[in-house]
Amino acid sequence: MNTLKQAARTITLDEIESILENMPLSHIIKSIQEGFVAYSKGSVVVPPVGEMLFENPPGEAHIKYGYILDDDAYVIKIASGFYQNRDLGLSPNAGLMLMFSQKTGRLETILLDEGCLTNVRTAAAGAVAARQLAPAKVHRIGILGAGYQGKMQLEFLKPVVPCQEVMVWGLDQEELDTYVNVMAPKGYHIETTLKTADVARACNLIVTATPSKKALLAAEDIKPGTHITAMGSDTPEKIELDPAILLHKADIIVADSIEQSHSRGEIFQARLGGTLAENRVVELGDVITGKSPGRTFDDQISVADLTGVAIQDIQICKLIAGATSGKR
Amino acid sequence: MNTLKQAARTITLDEIESILENMPLSHIIKSIQEGFVAYSKGSVVVPPVGEMLFENPPGEAHIKYGYILDDDAYVIKIASGFYQNRDLGLSPNAGLMLMFSQKTGRLETILLDEGCLTNVRTAAAGAVAARQLAPAKVHRIGILGAGYQGKMQLEFLKPVVPCQEVMVWGLDQEELDTYVNVMAPKGYHIETTLKTADVARACNLIVTATPSKKALLAAEDIKPGTHITAMGSDTPEKIELDPAILLHKADIIVADSIEQSHSRGEIFQARLGGTLAENRVVELGDVITGKSPGRTFDDQISVADLTGVAIQDIQICKLIAGATSGKR
Repeated sequence: MNTLKQAARTITLDEIESILENMPLSHIIKSIQEGFVAYSKGSVVVPPVGEMLFENPPGEAHIKYGYILDDDAYVIKIASGFYQNRDLGLSPNAGLMLMFSQKTGRLETILLDEGCLTNVRTAAAGAVAARQLAPAKVHRIGILGAGYQGKMQLEFLKPVVPCQEVMVWGLDQEELDTYVNVMAPKGYHIETTLKTADVARACNLIVTATPSKKALLAAEDIKPGTHITAMGSDTPEKIELDPAILLHKADIIVADSIEQSHSRGEIFQARLGGTLAENRVVELGDVITGKSPGRTFDDQISVADLTGVAIQDIQICKLIAGATSGKR
Repeated sequence: MNTLKQAARTITLDEIESILENMPLSHIIKSIQEGFVAYSKGSVVVPPVGEMLFENPPGEAHIKYGYILDDDAYVIKIASGFYQNRDLGLSPNAGLMLMFSQKTGRLETILLDEGCLTNVRTAAAGAVAARQLAPAKVHRIGILGAGYQGKMQLEFLKPVVPCQEVMVWGLDQEELDTYVNVMAPKGYHIETTLKTADVARACNLIVTATPSKKALLAAEDIKPGTHITAMGSDTPEKIELDPAILLHKADIIVADSIEQSHSRGEIFQARLGGTLAENRVVELGDVITGKSPGRTFDDQISVADLTGVAIQDIQICKLIAGATSGKR
């Protein structure tokens, strides 16, 4: 009874960052992986995303929420992007996560993460996809997008893919130099390029982490034995992969959420350009459990289309809240 | 710049209650009234309500959110009802309100109201409706529902309707005795009854504040010159008024939100039982500004169907946050 009557606990961004620093990446990846399994088993309730779009200045806010059936908690995440914030010296991202009791409705934990946990859970999903789908021997990792998420994706691959050779594509050399300066000290040997085709030719594990609205990777450049995790496209408009990659080249197509793939992401985009049968797409959680086949031969081309699912928010929220609950 | 970088401010339930105690009810009513005007003018963005339903134990959580165009803030409200909480000695209601900058997306204020502000904004809406639609001389106020909102509605009528004569209907005499014990010391002369028809016959301003799923007031009992504010029905299932009241007896039918009246509340319920032309329903904000006619003769029967609109949450959130912002 006492705990039920306790006031909600607030975890600040500083505290969250400190928890993350002390938590092995493999621990986070495992939690996100378990989330995808629960989601694909149908034991997660994820209502439609709430959305607000602002015009002056341009901005967007999303509300993602849901819960695991028969669990203790339900979670609501608010995340926003206001890109003119940079002119004010502020991060474009803001938001928080809220954890409530599924038994009483009481607010239990406020995580003032300012969008940070969305970045973490997104990077962890990239690692989950790579663990399932990357070829046995990754000789070079390719990253498209030299921004924050492009760095996070590489970092989260470390416990999953034993490869330090990296090629990064970015919009300009300045951005790429920064990438190298930040990531090389972490033990990577990093080449940079301004041509995406270079990445396609040199790498057999490629992660696309851009907000692009036109395809960046051409079908003819993708070599057999390549895995691509496309995690930038999370709206109906965004696209990173030439639709022909999914329509004609990919042997294995995996979605984090088949339901969401009907309305956003690379699979949605490919279907605007051709026919992609429903049964060609399998769900990440089902690949993890072996219910659906993943990569079976090393020369196959596989694509993981990650649009971001609320179960990731639920899992990261529970993980961070649980990591601190013993301390208070 | 400094304020933009400030951490979000948290206002506890105790602080909210203290602010409310020191705020004239007329101030709250005015704010809610202005909200309805803005809403009916089309200057408020209110996306569809988010909803989660739980089974074990039964519970529900709603997310209402939106913003006034070209305003500073956007607001998200989470409110839940877990009715078995009573067995644990907890309030069935929980939740909080969040206020963000519409210019940067930053979280500015957390109001840990635990559902309290929903009760306040709902009661204030009842006062707004009564001010617009009650007959010139109210000789007795009728309240259906002796619960918390039944008391709040009466209290919020005080600055709007100069009448101390009250008749209250409730489910049992114990509940009614409690109502009298709480409200009589506030200056009311209160009669109680277990028959709703008594209220219909004795009162010309009636507020229904119940979670009923069957009609409580019969059409034949409603006398000319009566105004009814039906505020209990906020879902497709709930109903307090015999559909014949709206279909055949009411001269004036007012909705807080015409859009919401298509899917919930008394107007929705009446249309399940007969034909109610679209042009017979006007919106509260338009009645306030005079764009739509309200009561024009004292012997008319008027009904206000209040299902609860996110603009009320936006207004009460801004009001409470504004009342404290100077203090810190």
